[in-house]
Amino acid sequence: MKDQALRMTMLFDCYGEMLTERQREFYDLYHNEDLSLAEIAENYGISRQGVRDVIVRAEAILTELEEKTGFVERTLRYRSAVEELAELNQAIAQQNRLRYRDPKLEQLTGEIAEKLTVLED
Amino acid sequence: MKDQALRMTMLFDCYGEMLTERQREFYDLYHNEDLSLAEIAENYGISRQGVRDVIVRAEAILTELEEKTGFVERTLRYRSAVEELAELNQAIAQQNRLRYRDPKLEQLTGEIAEKLTVLED
Repeated sequence: MKDQALRMTMLFDCYGEMLTERQREFYDLYHNEDLSLAEIAENYGISRQGVRDVIVRAEAILTELEEKTGFVERTLRYRSAVEELAELNQAIAQQNRLRYRDPKLEQLTGEIAEKLTVLED
Repeated sequence: MKDQALRMTMLFDCYGEMLTERQREFYDLYHNEDLSLAEIAENYGISRQGVRDVIVRAEAILTELEEKTGFVERTLRYRSAVEELAELNQAIAQQNRLRYRDPKLEQLTGEIAEKLTVLED
């Protein structure tokens, strides 16, 4: 179950609110806090298999949500595009600083840089 | 139920795959195709109240998904930011055309414009 740690964390961040409280707790302890099934079982006084069932169910719910809505994939695509936009904008700002020192271009590239930070979350 | 037509359509586009086939059909006929409850009921040979129950349930599911994940709101926020970025980028391109005719700036603003279209979907 512990493959694809980043993916599991992103699924949780994206859709975690759709889980029950118990599913969220166990999933978080296992995937984000890196506790073992046995450790979670001991802490909660239930069987290792019981913990496993809850986590497998939670993973299935998060995976289904991603298959049907695709927001994790879209978020990754957006992040990558926003990074590239920031680099292109920096290249414009640098060209302006080196060649033209145009205050209008400086302001516009500054506004773009600021606006891009809004898209980063 | 027919208030907020745009919102209902966006909820459906975003989370429609999470509904059952029947919920999706009735929701779509009612909110997107603008059929009345009575018309849907007649087409499917069930009661008006039965149709209403399915649609109210579908609306509740979509609304809960939005409350817990917020992707429609985020999509609207993104779209608005992307539009503003496109305007700022056009202002840079125009300033370059009027003043400097710098091929490097022309290329960079062109790449930004293209990249922004990726973020529009």
